[in-house]
Amino acid sequence: MLSDNCDPDRPAHPGIFLSHEAGESGYEPGEQCVDFPVSVVLPAGGTGERTGLQTPKQFCKFLGRPLISYTVQAFERVSWIQSIVVVVAKEHMDLMMDIVQRFQHRKVRVVPGGSTRHRSICNGVLALGGEGEGEAAAADRPKVVIIHDAVRPFVEEDFLCEIAMAAKEQGAAGAIRPLVSTVIATTAEGYLDHSLERAKYRASEMPQGFTYDVIHQAYQRCTESDFEFGTECLHLALQYCGTNAKLIQGPPTLWKVTYKRDLAAAESIIKDTLSQSACIITGGSTHAAALTEALQKPLGALDMELEVVPDLMGESSSYLLKEWNFIQVDCFCLSAVENLLKDLEAANRALLHPLVVIWVCLSCSDEPSGSERKLEPEGFMELASSSKLRNILLYGIQLHQSKDTERWERSVSKVAEISSALIRERSPALVGQLLQA
Amino acid sequence: MLSDNCDPDRPAHPGIFLSHEAGESGYEPGEQCVDFPVSVVLPAGGTGERTGLQTPKQFCKFLGRPLISYTVQAFERVSWIQSIVVVVAKEHMDLMMDIVQRFQHRKVRVVPGGSTRHRSICNGVLALGGEGEGEAAAADRPKVVIIHDAVRPFVEEDFLCEIAMAAKEQGAAGAIRPLVSTVIATTAEGYLDHSLERAKYRASEMPQGFTYDVIHQAYQRCTESDFEFGTECLHLALQYCGTNAKLIQGPPTLWKVTYKRDLAAAESIIKDTLSQSACIITGGSTHAAALTEALQKPLGALDMELEVVPDLMGESSSYLLKEWNFIQVDCFCLSAVENLLKDLEAANRALLHPLVVIWVCLSCSDEPSGSERKLEPEGFMELASSSKLRNILLYGIQLHQSKDTERWERSVSKVAEISSALIRERSPALVGQLLQA
Repeated sequence: MLSDNCDPDRPAHPGIFLSHEAGESGYEPGEQCVDFPVSVVLPAGGTGERTGLQTPKQFCKFLGRPLISYTVQAFERVSWIQSIVVVVAKEHMDLMMDIVQRFQHRKVRVVPGGSTRHRSICNGVLALGGEGEGEAAAADRPKVVIIHDAVRPFVEEDFLCEIAMAAKEQGAAGAIRPLVSTVIATTAEGYLDHSLERAKYRASEMPQGFTYDVIHQAYQRCTESDFEFGTECLHLALQYCGTNAKLIQGPPTLWKVTYKRDLAAAESIIKDTLSQSACIITGGSTHAAALTEALQKPLGALDMELEVVPDLMGESSSYLLKEWNFIQVDCFCLSAVENLLKDLEAANRALLHPLVVIWVCLSCSDEPSGSERKLEPEGFMELASSSKLRNILLYGIQLHQSKDTERWERSVSKVAEISSALIRERSPALVGQLLQA
Repeated sequence: MLSDNCDPDRPAHPGIFLSHEAGESGYEPGEQCVDFPVSVVLPAGGTGERTGLQTPKQFCKFLGRPLISYTVQAFERVSWIQSIVVVVAKEHMDLMMDIVQRFQHRKVRVVPGGSTRHRSICNGVLALGGEGEGEAAAADRPKVVIIHDAVRPFVEEDFLCEIAMAAKEQGAAGAIRPLVSTVIATTAEGYLDHSLERAKYRASEMPQGFTYDVIHQAYQRCTESDFEFGTECLHLALQYCGTNAKLIQGPPTLWKVTYKRDLAAAESIIKDTLSQSACIITGGSTHAAALTEALQKPLGALDMELEVVPDLMGESSSYLLKEWNFIQVDCFCLSAVENLLKDLEAANRALLHPLVVIWVCLSCSDEPSGSERKLEPEGFMELASSSKLRNILLYGIQLHQSKDTERWERSVSKVAEISSALIRERSPALVGQLLQA
């Protein structure tokens, strides 16, 4: 487990957002506001050769959802983006349509790709152009087109804003990053010819932005050979429209899922991001409130943001709509958990990610031992199994109220440690287990 | 969870190995044998700026062990490598010595680094030179020096062999990889100047190899400016010794841990590699043998290699020395698990990685229900807590023998699913839990 806090790779949410974490990057969050029409073209026609996988990487699943859906979500959340054209290989049209429907994406149009990257992007740009040549068609066209890779899911709004503004002003703009390795030229025989001076060069990344006119004209004028072998849109804008793109250093979050190890990195970032906060529901019992009070310190030490509420009625019902995990503290009564599960389902909260609900079951030793209520593990397991079908992962933790302070504190830290591990891992295999703290 | 099998990023073991997985790489496993002295210099003086972490990345821990120890292990396992010089910043000398001692590394010498990368590598090379100028000193010197990054832990023997052979023949050799992004030149004002034709360039990676004479001479002759601003050893060999390095395309496993996301990727690769095999111990009981038989299919379907043995006596004791996980199947008797733990400890098996032991506890419904032995969860938790201190992670899974075939099969798949998740995640928080299948 990596325990450091400061993470320049990680967006505030998987999908999008505020970007203060990139201490090393050269860009400032934009203060300006995008007040012109912007659309996005997402080429997603890759075949995934470099990951060594059967499934192209844009369709690889993370917590049950394909990577492309995360990238689409990143753009969909940006209010000033009007539409997103996803360009996929013909054989993946149906798959992509299913993804759009299942994860309830709006703003998205799916169009078939061409035989090369440039042909696919060109198809996407043409799809934005409106029909015909008249004024009505022109009115439909976006002012700026952002081109991005389907496999860079962590792009953030601030940076998109910078690219869009620079593209509108300069005609073209692109993200760059410092080179990680030295770049060398090789001789035909496989020997070192010379090495490039690292400081003078940059890696060209995505997103890139163009005015519609520049990117449209570049594709109208470029050659078959450009369509076949070219990789760099900024180069076409320079060569065919005389537009020198503005280059802007982006945050490290712009990285591209290329190799299989990158799939593991992306999964880890998504899991970390989903594990940052928990809402503890006490049900109003005094025992539960005391436990919750004691839990704050150890869970806080594990870097989890906590909110405590007696229930999810009234104002607190807003937690149902946020990306929180839930810990229901209770004394042997499953009905509160059942109600929570119903509310979460009604709010459609598990649509995009599996949602974690932990039932902390506190047994109170001050009850006469004969009358101590017996927990029915079978009932809990059944409830968890049916929730799992609806993408809600339910786990249980049992502990005994103890008058021995040391023992009680040990149990409380254990509840915190187990909760944190369950929330981080989201393991489907452990659903329905009643763990001992 | 990523479920594909074929993984070009992953070595057969975290450390070192046979490398048939890199289908896309251009290199052939070397058939030749290295019969000359080879030593290694590992510059490990980095400060970890790019990860955004307090701890430099070479000292970040994976399953309790610093990254540098994985890299050292990768070289230590190669029989023809004589010695490894690790160059660290002065303030990390003690830390590095502790790592060498704690993980029982042999072949390693730790030397203090200089103020730049080249000064550190130069210190490492000088440390290999033997004292003085006489013949005795020369006899101590390696024929070839391999230079590698401390933060590329997955380097494999075959590729090291290729680099060493080519270095001996040509004077210098280096690993290259195709460029992931287009490289562009920028104007002073931050605009696109031109983009490089991707096919003509390569990323220069590590390891690199040099004859001792070439690298020694290069550092003797180079300027202060090279020491201060240079990054590329191959360039020094060309400029100061006229040696054109042979460039060899390496496998994707050569990647360098650079950003924090790479730490997550490395952890995932290490965990995957440790989760490939399990040894099931039946204890000779017929019930246990029947369960083990039933477990083979679902565990096999989860891509786990299985071996089944009645105990770890005689020939089977060799499993104690291999990197296997252990599943002890039993009927309510902890003593077999206790013995297994003692044997594993005696074999020092948890030195490099936390070791997983799963106790599968089978209750047999054909015993009279009154006499059914009661399991003491407290005893199991205590045993697990004390094992955890010795880096052995003990978990339990309970299931009931059932005559209802469907129910029995469901339980068996659940044992497989839970075991696989426990082995993959190695969660310290869940140690000592008795899970229900």
